[in-house]
Amino acid sequence: MKIQPLHITKIGGKILEDEARLDQVLRNFVNLEGHKILVHGGGKRASEMSRRLGIEPRMHQGRRITDEPALEVATMVYAGWSNKKVVSLLQAGGCDALGLSGADGNAILARKRPVGEVDYGFAGDIEEVNTGLIRHLLFAQITPVFCAITHDGQGQLLNTNADTIAARLARALTPHYDVHLHYCFEKPGVLTDPDDDDTVIARLTFDSYRQYQQQGVITDGMIPKLDNAFGALRHGVKGVVICGPITLNGAGTQLYL
Amino acid sequence: MKIQPLHITKIGGKILEDEARLDQVLRNFVNLEGHKILVHGGGKRASEMSRRLGIEPRMHQGRRITDEPALEVATMVYAGWSNKKVVSLLQAGGCDALGLSGADGNAILARKRPVGEVDYGFAGDIEEVNTGLIRHLLFAQITPVFCAITHDGQGQLLNTNADTIAARLARALTPHYDVHLHYCFEKPGVLTDPDDDDTVIARLTFDSYRQYQQQGVITDGMIPKLDNAFGALRHGVKGVVICGPITLNGAGTQLYL
Repeated sequence: MKIQPLHITKIGGKILEDEARLDQVLRNFVNLEGHKILVHGGGKRASEMSRRLGIEPRMHQGRRITDEPALEVATMVYAGWSNKKVVSLLQAGGCDALGLSGADGNAILARKRPVGEVDYGFAGDIEEVNTGLIRHLLFAQITPVFCAITHDGQGQLLNTNADTIAARLARALTPHYDVHLHYCFEKPGVLTDPDDDDTVIARLTFDSYRQYQQQGVITDGMIPKLDNAFGALRHGVKGVVICGPITLNGAGTQLYL
Repeated sequence: MKIQPLHITKIGGKILEDEARLDQVLRNFVNLEGHKILVHGGGKRASEMSRRLGIEPRMHQGRRITDEPALEVATMVYAGWSNKKVVSLLQAGGCDALGLSGADGNAILARKRPVGEVDYGFAGDIEEVNTGLIRHLLFAQITPVFCAITHDGQGQLLNTNADTIAARLARALTPHYDVHLHYCFEKPGVLTDPDDDDTVIARLTFDSYRQYQQQGVITDGMIPKLDNAFGALRHGVKGVVICGPITLNGAGTQLYL
């Protein structure tokens, strides 16, 4: 039996909040051939909503510290407004989208991150992806749209990094599909100069990634994203691209082991 | 072929916000035999969240006027926090719940209510229920959990009364199941004295409902609920009960045509 292609596209919070870019990326997403899954962040809006409610967002090394009020805001913004907005736009574009958190159909089971040097609060580390449900939906020509909320199976919702969700979905589904992972954010790819969009690294091997990191060329939030991305490649994902909203179907930074 | 039973239970916003009552109603819901669908409101929390954001909720005859900021709050609260909280609690109780708005899988298509004497803003009147998706989920032993948000198929989310959603789901699914509809709220049933929980009307016919209405015994928010409920009975729903969180499996007010 021929294994079918599956495109998993993660879109970042800054794209979600920019109507023109969101429209562009969703149109490109709808035009991808074969089975599709969308994963979205929403941290930018969650931080804004937090501040409107008088709660100052707390971060540690780019990761959100999720106390109970922050979990409520994250769940409202990610699973509520952002997820349903994206689903309704995809439906309008002719794509039969269905929004999911990890709690829905027990799609993604996680556990609360153990308290170490930092207490991340209700942050979830993924334990298991329910591929049965996802394959069932894909077979029915439905496009799952995942937000960055999971659960622990005991009634506790957990805030979970969207890049990690995309990578773990990709890894879990490799036995069943030819999985292609697209990390789509506000830049056209991985840049050697973050202020110059013309410096996209077209082809990035793991060795050159380590070199760029040592040289301080690739830094900050790009590091966990690329760690997730290379991890997916090591676990059998066919292709990983870091790209911008316009370049979803083509250019960007292609990763190689 | 024997037609299978389907229980559609609607729980109101005041139960959602009361942990002990919510726990009780969800435990009773999990124990219902056969296929199940849950529908929930969330208006109480949406109004509170509105006020915390400095937006005064506007109502007309018990119905929310949904301008754009109110739609954002409703979507965050209903589809986000309330829906995912209920889904995660049901999952913890061993029920494979999956949260849905009407946009998800195009489950419920609505249209923006035409502006008449009152402009309700982004309020949705239901046009069509996608029974194919719902039957598909029920067949897979999944329990859909609907929040009070629908869409128009053109990318617009719409705020839609949860009582109406429950009634329309019930009506649409009568060709496929023996549908039983439970309206579960903070009182033990329809009361002749709203301040005395011991005055439950055990058996309410349409004629006696009209009499109670003329006498001013049944008033306010109970009227649209009962109109929805009797409408469902007229359209082939096998049984409709108005009940409290404890009485989901038994007592309450049973309706008859």
